[in-house]
Formats: sequence, C-alpha cells, structure tokens
Amino acid sequence: MQVYDLIQKTVRQKKLMKSEMQFLITNFTNNKIPDYMMSAWLMAVRCQGLSPEETADMTLAMRDSGEILDFSEIPGATVDKHSTGGIGDKTTLMIAPIVAACGGYVPKMSGRGLGFTGGTIDKLESIPGFSVNLSRQDFYRQIQKIGCAVIAQSGNLTPADKKIYALRNLTATVDSIPLISASIMSKKLALNADCILLDVKCGNGAFMKTRESALALAESMKSTAIAHGKKCSAVITDMNAPLGMAVGNALEVREAISILRCEIHNPLAELVIDLSGQMLALSGMGDLQECRCKALKALKSGKALTKFAEMIAAQGGDASVTDHPEKLPHSRASRMLFSDKSGYLASVHSEEIGLACLELGAGRTSANSQIDPGAGVVFLHQIGDEIQDGDVLCEIHADSDVLCEQAEKRICSAIQITEMPVPELQLIDCVI
Amino acid sequence: MQVYDLIQKTVRQKKLMKSEMQFLITNFTNNKIPDYMMSAWLMAVRCQGLSPEETADMTLAMRDSGEILDFSEIPGATVDKHSTGGIGDKTTLMIAPIVAACGGYVPKMSGRGLGFTGGTIDKLESIPGFSVNLSRQDFYRQIQKIGCAVIAQSGNLTPADKKIYALRNLTATVDSIPLISASIMSKKLALNADCILLDVKCGNGAFMKTRESALALAESMKSTAIAHGKKCSAVITDMNAPLGMAVGNALEVREAISILRCEIHNPLAELVIDLSGQMLALSGMGDLQECRCKALKALKSGKALTKFAEMIAAQGGDASVTDHPEKLPHSRASRMLFSDKSGYLASVHSEEIGLACLELGAGRTSANSQIDPGAGVVFLHQIGDEIQDGDVLCEIHADSDVLCEQAEKRICSAIQITEMPVPELQLIDCVI
Repeated sequence: MQVYDLIQKTVRQKKLMKSEMQFLITNFTNNKIPDYMMSAWLMAVRCQGLSPEETADMTLAMRDSGEILDFSEIPGATVDKHSTGGIGDKTTLMIAPIVAACGGYVPKMSGRGLGFTGGTIDKLESIPGFSVNLSRQDFYRQIQKIGCAVIAQSGNLTPADKKIYALRNLTATVDSIPLISASIMSKKLALNADCILLDVKCGNGAFMKTRESALALAESMKSTAIAHGKKCSAVITDMNAPLGMAVGNALEVREAISILRCEIHNPLAELVIDLSGQMLALSGMGDLQECRCKALKALKSGKALTKFAEMIAAQGGDASVTDHPEKLPHSRASRMLFSDKSGYLASVHSEEIGLACLELGAGRTSANSQIDPGAGVVFLHQIGDEIQDGDVLCEIHADSDVLCEQAEKRICSAIQITEMPVPELQLIDCVI
Repeated sequence: MQVYDLIQKTVRQKKLMKSEMQFLITNFTNNKIPDYMMSAWLMAVRCQGLSPEETADMTLAMRDSGEILDFSEIPGATVDKHSTGGIGDKTTLMIAPIVAACGGYVPKMSGRGLGFTGGTIDKLESIPGFSVNLSRQDFYRQIQKIGCAVIAQSGNLTPADKKIYALRNLTATVDSIPLISASIMSKKLALNADCILLDVKCGNGAFMKTRESALALAESMKSTAIAHGKKCSAVITDMNAPLGMAVGNALEVREAISILRCEIHNPLAELVIDLSGQMLALSGMGDLQECRCKALKALKSGKALTKFAEMIAAQGGDASVTDHPEKLPHSRASRMLFSDKSGYLASVHSEEIGLACLELGAGRTSANSQIDPGAGVVFLHQIGDEIQDGDVLCEIHADSDVLCEQAEKRICSAIQITEMPVPELQLIDCVI
C-alpha cells in the first residue's frame, strides 16, 4: 500500500477502504508517514470531503491508536454528552448531576477553554479544591458510586487525534466537517460510553456559523456513533447569544448553582432539562416525555443539587459552595453597564462577548496563559426582556477597573436594544 | 505575513497578491517554509485552482528563484518551443534547423525522457559524439553563429521548480493545470526567449488526455507568457497515435533526417512545417502564410538539412549521419510484425506503444536507468493506409530477440485495423 495512491484516491474522490484508512492513520501516528504527505492528504479531505463510511473508518482508526475506557462493570448504561463549544455553555455542570440523580451514569471528560470559547474543566477548577485529575480507578469508582464524574482529558487517549490536530492547526485544515467529526468522535469512542448526546452549537459564537454546517456536522458525528454501535442523538442549539446569564468561570458555576437551587428559571434551565431528558431516554429510562419529567423532578426536588455537591466533594472540592456560592472566587474589580435607552433586549452578539471575556481575563489566548476565575460578564436580562433607560444591563468583572473599562465598549456594542418587542430565545433548533 | 493565512486564502478561493505569492515561493525555496505547509498549499491549489494572475505571479516568483538567460546580444528575436511531451515527438530535431535556416534564432533547452514519453536530449545523444552540455558562452555563441542550439537543462535555472516538483511528485499534486503551467513556464521565462510556441499534446499518449484539459493548460501557459511580455502562440496537437513513423531514440533521429532529406512526406512533416511557420511568424518574419512558405522552402531546398548538420558539428557530433543515417546506433535484434488481416490502419494506441518501447529499452523506468539508443518501433504505414493480410505493420528493435518477442503482443494489441476506410490523421486540433 502506497501513501501516494491513497492521497491520489482522496483527491480524485474515490473512497478509501477501511484497511487503507487504518494504514494511513496508524502509520502516521507511528511516525512512518511524513508530515508533508499527511498534510497533503488532510488538505485533500478538506477540499474533497470524505464519505460517511470513510469518516467512520477514520474515527475508528483514531480511537484504536490509544487507550479505550471500559465501563463494563457499571451496572447500567453509561451516557456521555458532547458540546461543540460556545459562550457561557455551563450545561455539563447541571446535566451530569441531574442525570445521575435520576439513576443514570455520566462519565465525562472535558476540555479547557482556548480563545473565545470556555472549557468545562476551567469552570470546575474555580471551585476551591476541585480536582479534575482522577486516576482511571477513581474515575470508574466515582461513577459507580455517585453516578457522575467530570475529569480532564488524560492518559493516552487518541494519540492519533493529537498528532493530526497539531498538523491541521498549522496547515489550515481545521474547518473540515469530516475531520472535525473524526476528531470529536474518536475521543467519544475512546471514552466508550454506551450512549452519546451531541449538542452542536450553531451561530456567531460557535465554530459552526450556519445551520447547514451544524446539521452536516451533527449528521456526520451521529452516523459515526451509530456505525460503531452507540446509541446517539444530536441536538442543534443556538449560539448567537451567550448561553444563560453568566460568561466567565466562577460566574458560570454560580449561575449553574442558582439553577440547581431553582432560584432562577431561564431558557438555559429549559435546555438543561431537555438535554438531560434526551440523555436519560438514550440510557433506556423511558420515553422522551417521561425522561424529561424525571429530569425536571430531580431539579425541583433538590436531588440534582445534592448530587452536584456529592460530585464536588468526591473530587476534593468544597461542596459548601452549593449553599454558599459567595465562597467562589471573585475578581478584584467590577463595573455596571447601564442602558442609555428603553426598549427590548433584541440580541447579544455571542462571539463579541466571548472576545470581551477573553480580554477581561476569563479565557486563554495561548495554551499556557493563566485565567482569572472570577472574571467575566453577568447579564441581568434575557433576550426579549423589556428594558428601561438607566437599567443595569450587565455586570463586568475583572482584575482591575482599567480592564473593566476597556471591555465596556466592546460589550456595549454587542448588545442590541430595539423599540419593537422581540420573542424569547428558542435554544433548541432541532433534534436529529 | 503568515503561511497559514496564505494556505487559508487559497483553500477559501481568495486570491493571493503578488507579494504573497513571492513570499511563499521564495521562502519555500530558501527552506524557510516547511514541506508540510507547502504540500498543504499545493494540495489546496490542486483542488481549488489558481486564477490566471496568481498563476502568472507564481511563475514569475519561480523564474526569479534562479538564473535568467540573456539573449540581448543576439541580433534578432529569439524563439523557443515547448512540447508537453508525447510518443515519437521528434519535432525539435527538424524545427530548430528549419527556423534557423530561415534566419530565426532558436535557443532550446530540452529534457530527458522518463516513463513512457521520450526526451529530445536522449534522441540527440544517440548521434555519435553529440554533446548536450554547452557552457552558457558556447550556447550564446552557437545561437549567434548558427541560429540554433539544443542543450540539456543546466545551471541554476528555477531551483524553486525543482523543489516544488519534488514535493508534488510525492504528494499527488502533479495533475494540476496551474501547477503544471507554472512549472513549464517558469523554465521558459528563465530561458528567456522573446517568443514562445507551445505545442500542447492531447490524447492517450499525452499527459493531457482530454481536449478540455489541453485547452485549459494551453490557455494558462499562454496567459502567463503574455503577462510577462512574451509573444506566444499555443497549438493543440493530437497524441492518440505516435507522432510519425518511429518511436525510439536513434530511430526517431533517422526519421527526422529522412524528412529533412525530403525522402518521406507524412503528417509529421506537415506538422513540422506548420509549427516552424508559427515560430517564424512569432519572430516577426511575416504573416503566417508567408512564414509557412519560408519553412517549406528551407526544407525542400535542403538548407534545413545543412543547418541540422551544422548544429550537430558545432555540438561535437558526427554530422555525416545526415548523409549516412546508417551510422546511427542499431539494436542487436529486430523482428517484423505482420498483419493477419486486410483493411485500413484505423488507430495505434500511443500510450501502449510508449510502454512497449519502455520495455524494449528505449526509455527510462527510473531517473538513473540506461537506455538502448537503437531500441524502439518503426511503423511502415500511416493512419488511414490500406493494409493487406501479411503486410509488415512495423519493425521492432531491441537488444535481444526475447525483448522483441515480449513486446510484440502489446504492440499488436495497440494496432487497430478496420474494414471501413478511415481518414488520414489531422495532427493540429487548433491554434490559440
């Protein structure tokens, strides 16, 4: 088998066989295929695409390059969730305890934030003492005992993905649906939960800017999951406005706690119930309607909050933050942004808010930069709310007044207030 | 300027500016851009194309990577010719002396054969003593004195092309019209003749298999030539059947001498007159009709034959081969192939004949393989000729009877004889 011929096939839109895909991925991972051939192949994929079968084969070969987890001793179906990333996406913090409180098992590996999108791991690490690094044994044990655990990616999972992603990142081959799909799903297949819920974000604050591309990615990922024996649903959700009220690590944990404490009920809370219901349904806990009710009950009864506290305690964190969220880290400076007109909150440009939070210190500009866990923005209104001239629109948090002032203009221009009433945000576009 | 952004631009079909193209080519040539980035860019070009302006800019940057020849002391317009390569293409051997005999100046650098296509340099080297390696000074002097010289590519011409081609050859990015165009034209612009005639071969024995691709390549190359101030015409010519009667180095020199001696007149001779006329017209020697007449007169009068002898002598070869072609090298074995039916010679599959000649020893399978100058095939009929059962179709020449026998089957199956009469071959498809 010659690498040249495989590149040629992909360029000429002829399908690679499973054995050919394995040859390519395995030998590249083992440094037997030079980078210049692999980058040519990746660019050919970027331009010519891959069939669903090829994508599934590539994903499997990537999964098989490293460790595969084994939850066979868990006495029930395990269910994973993946969000393609957005601004203010703290759903995992609520979904994992809700599903676990309903008897589900949620083994979750999450990432750190880079650029304008946040990462669940950074959010959890803002809880004093919380450890995202568990041994495999402790990870398995916690899931069995509590029903959920959220840890950072660790160990030798999908080394093929790491090596391919590094090359894609240098050769402008990141924005390819089959390559994104294979990258995400190889990690999902290596984590190896029985069921996978995919939350594909769509809008200006997401990687997928258009509905078409979000649908294509969702279909590609779901098709790979099904091909490899997983139960899978995919939900397309809105990312034109930040998800929920808070953007920034500790601020988002605080919002999640408020929702788990039933102190606020917003479109984000609705989404969390819907996604939890989907995950319970995939796990075989009943039909969608029943499962949604179970999720809502777990939330309303306070069981989900208790489960979150259990998870925090099990991972070495200070569980009292669930009763005393003021114990979460604060930034040194804050500033309020006032509305200079009356009307209706029509839109909040998600990507701009993400970039503003990056400037405030809530995100990373490079893999090694430090984040300020207390930094970020908290909105006081939902899309559709009526606003009076002089109302506080949001609170800005950062390490200094200068940083707050600097971000104010960007945040201000991201907020649109109109004279005409606007409908409340519908977060779920569709389920496939 | 970041290489990543330039790759991204090409992938997204946004045009690179001239300065960006220069940055890319210059830095790659100077080993400042890694192969894996360049191969990704080349694949992006292979898939998404380049505009005519980008192709012209790339070509210029490649030209500027090395030496550029200077014919300013030649007292008239210099005219170059490029054939994209085929089976039995010995036109240069006749065209250079014809044009020189009419007062034109033909500085020509040719290549060696690789794979199933032949190279003019190998053909000339079959003439005893002929040297294809002249110093720049001797090259200039011979053109000034005799009007033509044909030498091998030498010196530091277009190092960018060598480096890019080596990478394309490993990454399945060879079959890209803008990249082929830039590769060819960078060498033409570095040779730096005032006028360029492009002979784009089209058919199963050529790199361009379809009329569309041949036209696209011709247009791309001509557009680059014009953009850089050259006079240029392009001719699309047939390469479904071998060009002329002979395929194989010394055998082709012998056919060229026969045509220059006016012993045979075939479609190849017509093509040679047409192409010579085109080159004289580009050189400003009159309109096309006048120039064609001049070329024909140079051939008929024997002046072209004398010029060929002069050129051979000037390059150290035995010029007496023009009167005694039997002095050219012979293979040790030969074999005749007879027709087993009557009818009309309908087609001779060019690529198959090329491959058969490769087996006979007339070509190179790798850059270092030795060729047998006497090996090859000589056809005794033209397309359209009436054939009788038992007629000799062709003579096969090689180093041993075994080689001749082995090739016979392949040659036989490449020849099609039909009951219905077929028209004579029209070699020129169109001129652009």
